Amino acid sequence: MEILFVWPGKTRNASYRALQQEYLEKIKLFTRVNLVETAEARGLEEKWSEKILEKEARGLEKYTKDGYIICLSDGGKELNSKELANLIESKAMSPSRQIIFFVGGFLGLAPRILEKADLKLSLSRMTFSHELARTVLLEQVYRALNLIKGYAYPK
Amino acid sequence: MEILFVWPGKTRNASYRALQQEYLEKIKLFTRVNLVETAEARGLEEKWSEKILEKEARGLEKYTKDGYIICLSDGGKELNSKELANLIESKAMSPSRQIIFFVGGFLGLAPRILEKADLKLSLSRMTFSHELARTVLLEQVYRALNLIKGYAYPK
Repeated sequence: MEILFVWPGKTRNASYRALQQEYLEKIKLFTRVNLVETAEARGLEEKWSEKILEKEARGLEKYTKDGYIICLSDGGKELNSKELANLIESKAMSPSRQIIFFVGGFLGLAPRILEKADLKLSLSRMTFSHELARTVLLEQVYRALNLIKGYAYPK
Repeated sequence: MEILFVWPGKTRNASYRALQQEYLEKIKLFTRVNLVETAEARGLEEKWSEKILEKEARGLEKYTKDGYIICLSDGGKELNSKELANLIESKAMSPSRQIIFFVGGFLGLAPRILEKADLKLSLSRMTFSHELARTVLLEQVYRALNLIKGYAYPK
């Protein structure tokens, strides 16, 4: 199995970035994992949101060819931690054995990336900033891998 | 209005602690806010969970006398960010004008603290570590205060 996280741009807040790195290192103890930070749309004001999303989609779409695709999306399906673990476990057995998580930038993901999703996943009814969402996702994947192995999650 | 966050023990992970501090500073721009870290039950193994919760409840219960009490709880009510903002806004007008958020330690909150809650709040169907939950809560309160003022939330 390989787990890939793909998102546009670097996480700017140093503490969130450090946490994301921590969880990636911990996930590595369980499985192959990679984070790809694709090109970010820079220098465009928020009113050009369609342009921003379209520009970022070009970097993201390279990673939509293969694997089981999960896009974080506010309107997506809410799973609990056990359900996410079950999903990851079942996909680990599938032929491609690759699970790809897409997380958007501050405007989210372009519709044409969302269309590629095998699952649109929502982390909460609450709206999280994209830097927080990335961190929560990594924590949940780490938690899921612990659950699959039957380990008590380190608190 | 005053917002109080109360939880047992210090957040150990330095990055989560830094983020919590960042959000507290940002919340301070909107309202009076305090964080109280009450006594943590130390030196007890997890199998003594009732004892741990009971010990921690003694530190927490001092803060259950007044104000509108919100306890984070897995089985609690899920609100979206707008609903949380509306709730905070309505309580800001109430006589005591104090909102107190309780977050547990790694085992959560003792039943007798949960019983004091005016609202049991769940951040997600997913299970978060208590250090992550504290961070998400602070981010959401900061987001709520921005929403109340009609500000665009800084992404």
